[in-house]
Amino acid sequence: MTDSIDKLKTLLGEVADIGSAIAVLHWDQQTYMPSGGAEERAMQIATLSRMAHELATSDEIGAAIEAAKADVGDLEAPSDEARLVRKTDRDFTKEKKVPSSWVTEFRRTTALAHRTWAKARQESDFSQFQSILEKIIDLRRQYAEFFTPFDHPYDPLLDDYEPGMKTAEVKSVFENLRPQQVELVHAISEVSERVDDTPIHQDFDEKRQWDFGIEVIKAFGFDFDRGRQDKTVHPFTTDFGIGDVRITTRFDPQFFNTGVFSTLHEAGHAMYEQGVDQKFSRTPLAGGTSLGIHESQSRMWENLVGRSKPFWVAFYPRLKKYFPDQLGNVDVEAFYKAINKVEPSLIRVEADEATYNLHVMLRFEIETALLEGKVEAAELPDVWNTKMQEYLGITPPDDAQGVLQDVHWSEGLLGYFPTYALGNLVASQLWEKIEEDIPDLSQQIETAKFDVLLGWLRENVHQYGAKFEPMELLQRITGSGLSAEPYLRYLRSKFGEIYGLDG
Amino acid sequence: MTDSIDKLKTLLGEVADIGSAIAVLHWDQQTYMPSGGAEERAMQIATLSRMAHELATSDEIGAAIEAAKADVGDLEAPSDEARLVRKTDRDFTKEKKVPSSWVTEFRRTTALAHRTWAKARQESDFSQFQSILEKIIDLRRQYAEFFTPFDHPYDPLLDDYEPGMKTAEVKSVFENLRPQQVELVHAISEVSERVDDTPIHQDFDEKRQWDFGIEVIKAFGFDFDRGRQDKTVHPFTTDFGIGDVRITTRFDPQFFNTGVFSTLHEAGHAMYEQGVDQKFSRTPLAGGTSLGIHESQSRMWENLVGRSKPFWVAFYPRLKKYFPDQLGNVDVEAFYKAINKVEPSLIRVEADEATYNLHVMLRFEIETALLEGKVEAAELPDVWNTKMQEYLGITPPDDAQGVLQDVHWSEGLLGYFPTYALGNLVASQLWEKIEEDIPDLSQQIETAKFDVLLGWLRENVHQYGAKFEPMELLQRITGSGLSAEPYLRYLRSKFGEIYGLDG
Repeated sequence: MTDSIDKLKTLLGEVADIGSAIAVLHWDQQTYMPSGGAEERAMQIATLSRMAHELATSDEIGAAIEAAKADVGDLEAPSDEARLVRKTDRDFTKEKKVPSSWVTEFRRTTALAHRTWAKARQESDFSQFQSILEKIIDLRRQYAEFFTPFDHPYDPLLDDYEPGMKTAEVKSVFENLRPQQVELVHAISEVSERVDDTPIHQDFDEKRQWDFGIEVIKAFGFDFDRGRQDKTVHPFTTDFGIGDVRITTRFDPQFFNTGVFSTLHEAGHAMYEQGVDQKFSRTPLAGGTSLGIHESQSRMWENLVGRSKPFWVAFYPRLKKYFPDQLGNVDVEAFYKAINKVEPSLIRVEADEATYNLHVMLRFEIETALLEGKVEAAELPDVWNTKMQEYLGITPPDDAQGVLQDVHWSEGLLGYFPTYALGNLVASQLWEKIEEDIPDLSQQIETAKFDVLLGWLRENVHQYGAKFEPMELLQRITGSGLSAEPYLRYLRSKFGEIYGLDG
Repeated sequence: MTDSIDKLKTLLGEVADIGSAIAVLHWDQQTYMPSGGAEERAMQIATLSRMAHELATSDEIGAAIEAAKADVGDLEAPSDEARLVRKTDRDFTKEKKVPSSWVTEFRRTTALAHRTWAKARQESDFSQFQSILEKIIDLRRQYAEFFTPFDHPYDPLLDDYEPGMKTAEVKSVFENLRPQQVELVHAISEVSERVDDTPIHQDFDEKRQWDFGIEVIKAFGFDFDRGRQDKTVHPFTTDFGIGDVRITTRFDPQFFNTGVFSTLHEAGHAMYEQGVDQKFSRTPLAGGTSLGIHESQSRMWENLVGRSKPFWVAFYPRLKKYFPDQLGNVDVEAFYKAINKVEPSLIRVEADEATYNLHVMLRFEIETALLEGKVEAAELPDVWNTKMQEYLGITPPDDAQGVLQDVHWSEGLLGYFPTYALGNLVASQLWEKIEEDIPDLSQQIETAKFDVLLGWLRENVHQYGAKFEPMELLQRITGSGLSAEPYLRYLRSKFGEIYGLDG
């Protein structure tokens, strides 16, 4: 058995190396590359991507997988070897079903679409984007067809980001969640006493925001010997192996939440990657098991920790030292409410915790309808605006702040959005279990002690990388499947207290 | 003809893309990579290097070269196509002569040797380094044998860095140069009135050094839309295409020369790369034609421009604004002499202009003797120290400051050193031609005007990239071959004036 696994690992290591090199090229492109490098960089990324794809779908890898499968036997066994072969086989089989002519066409179309979308958004003109979006939707419908039979045409897309998850399951959970979340947001907006958020809308020096963020994530346990932070227009996390996991952030000099909560969010992603067992290095198991589980980690550190009262009991005195003029006369209670103010808004990435998932569910419903053929590209602005009014009570004044706001569709990323909401749900499910296992968690956080929490996550989630599928992992940890109830309990409790709602 | 050239260019473009990706991985490794990324990065570089080598020596490329050769006809014709095929064929033929077993062994040995050398230098103990250096010398002797017949076993090594150059030619030029340069240095050291260099040994704030350096290279014409500068332990220039050429620098907070002249030196390299005609992008012609010609550009901007009196007439008033406390009472004449002080010293990279080449010639003589089998590794410390005493009149107190000072041999870079001295010679040869073509060059430099000079270099040197071999290029521009005379005239004139020597 050792021989066939070793052979497979050698080939997978090479695929991983090329993948990491591509990630470095992307990271550099976003952080430090001068504008003149764009054209040649695009060629470099294209060439390496093609090589990675060719190698990952080569007959040699196929034969190595077959040999390893024969040696390993039961791929469902929970051994590292079985799961490595299982995941490799699963990815290989999926990738082999997609003709290279489709891949070429998809890459060509999305490269063009990205520029078209950027211009359409800038000019707030959906009509410029419509025809290429139609093409992308058409390509995505074709993509689904490569995986027939399926329960739902959205299943193959969702599966790329959330392995094993079915559209029907997400639908069922979201349909239970949505009316209750809408009702909560409605109840909050009924409360006459509004939260005053002027404290977080002041001049906040960027360098001090940066330093405070670094102080927090160091306390969390982000390992700067195996990572770093830089600035970009859009924050992201990337990794070039388990030993080099990088985050980026951005700042708004007049709005506190943007910079610090970006840093905390990305650090949550990064600590997941840093926590994967070193033995999985350069294999497909080195990395988070799904975008949903990833988002559960980033949202946990950002929100369940970073927007909690115990956290600010510990860190507000420190923050005041960075901004004595701005916050000297603001007490921790007022500050806590300010950062948690609920207000239906147009842009998902700026949404508060109580309204965030409504933005995501809206996109999920639209995307599934697109795949079902019930909605066409031309109808998107209307569908979008109608749902925004229904769920959030507001209508975008223009398409730039509506249907054109997110980059995802231009990149062909249909099937991706639900993972943002799944992350919130899973974070709350894990949190209830964590609170059982660490009864004095709040007190620990109040004293800026995070090692027990991080240790729990390492032990139960991070170390496994992609060894277990997301729902399998959740089941192993919590004993139950995906559920919206813990999340609803969390929202009701937190915002009930902030807004003085009846329980 | 178009078809075969296009086919070849497509393949060469892919090789170039992988090469650029490797360069990005190296750049990141030196600039921003956290320590934890080292192990996985080494694997990434190894995998991509192997892939680049396999592709560059593939039968497919071989066939494409043959087809293009047949279509192009005369490879000596000065057309872009002929020269692209000529250079590609030359590199391919050379690379095919080296067995991959040798490449593997060489990479393995030098990777190990680098660490061994670093420790040996730190502990100033040559004996730790000796046995692996023997292995490297042995591998390099084997390497030469792959290219029999040759005039001299050092020829194949030199040719890797200075295409077409023969050991005999370098020997002849150096043997003419050395006694005259030794005599000049001796004459300088006889002068009783020493130059006072205390002005450049003061506290110089790093940020201000950085800002001044940037101001200078912007004035030179370094294009920051197609490049950038970062900090590293050892300064270097790298490029990821013609549109993205990066330099690095370092600073000594108590010694002015280190930071600024590093910046000027690397900017000289970078402006060469930035000046290559865009039509050569992603081909083997995109880049300097040899290390010697490259060094002629870096040394020209660093020394012939940057350490000249006209330059400081323009920039000394600006520099004083950055360092009013340090330089307020130092006049430009005193400052000019201070930065140009001649003093035999132990370390090549810190040597002044008058002694620098002596360090290089010493290494060239040792390297050729090693290849001839006249010197063995065990004798190196003695040989080194004897020659240092003979040429520079000083003996290293230990091996760290002697034979162990440079990284090159540990990386297997034998054949590389002469290019440093060739650069100085070629710079002076070009400079005499430039002064003929631009009679008011000094006055232009005194007013910080560099566009005519850079324009001349672009027109005569940079645009061609590697289209012409180095000595062919020199011949085309100056009408003569390599010569030490212009360099000696330059040194005698400059230092004769500074030290008041008889002409």
